[in-house]
Amino acid sequence: TKQGKRTKRAKNGNKACSLQEEEVTISQLGLAYISDETIPFRYCSGRCVASRRNYDLTLASLKRKHVLNRENLKKARHSPCCRPIAYEKEISFLDNESKYHTIYDVSASECACV
Amino acid sequence: TKQGKRTKRAKNGNKACSLQEEEVTISQLGLAYISDETIPFRYCSGRCVASRRNYDLTLASLKRKHVLNRENLKKARHSPCCRPIAYEKEISFLDNESKYHTIYDVSASECACV
Repeated sequence: TKQGKRTKRAKNGNKACSLQEEEVTISQLGLAYISDETIPFRYCSGRCVASRRNYDLTLASLKRKHVLNRENLKKARHSPCCRPIAYEKEISFLDNESKYHTIYDVSASECACV
Repeated sequence: TKQGKRTKRAKNGNKACSLQEEEVTISQLGLAYISDETIPFRYCSGRCVASRRNYDLTLASLKRKHVLNRENLKKARHSPCCRPIAYEKEISFLDNESKYHTIYDVSASECACV
């Protein structure tokens, strides 16, 4: 059976935007390095409904009423995004051939509803 | 006929994230005020692909590979959002009964890929 949005949200615990963490290998990052070293990959996920301003409510209302049908308006976001506002500047590791590499801005260090 | 994503993008001129403007009446804002006064409503719309960092590429890769199947990860955004980073603090107007009102953070004044 198909679940309604509210049921889904309730089941997912309605989590607010926050920093999450998963252990992954460097190879899994998809940045073309082959290394079995693991790092804690941190990312931003969760809801931002509480951060809506009049701007978001207005934009949602204009879309709903089809007052303005321009493509640009239809595509504009009327809800804040849970996104990194700071990154771990550098992560260094050895690849499987023992070469040393440094990668930048891979992992989030702080999240916000923007 | 259904259009591919690239065709659609090309037709829409591939516009980068920027501030857009539309004349609307206060009534149309959906904030429960009745007034025929018009204001320039400014909002943020456009593409943010050029602003992707290693974080976004990594997150997209982890999702694609189903390395991590957690709900949180699936929901995390792997592309920056075109959003206001500043708002017009106040807009004042007279409603249709000549009462004076001030509304806050309704219109964007600056946009960015965040």
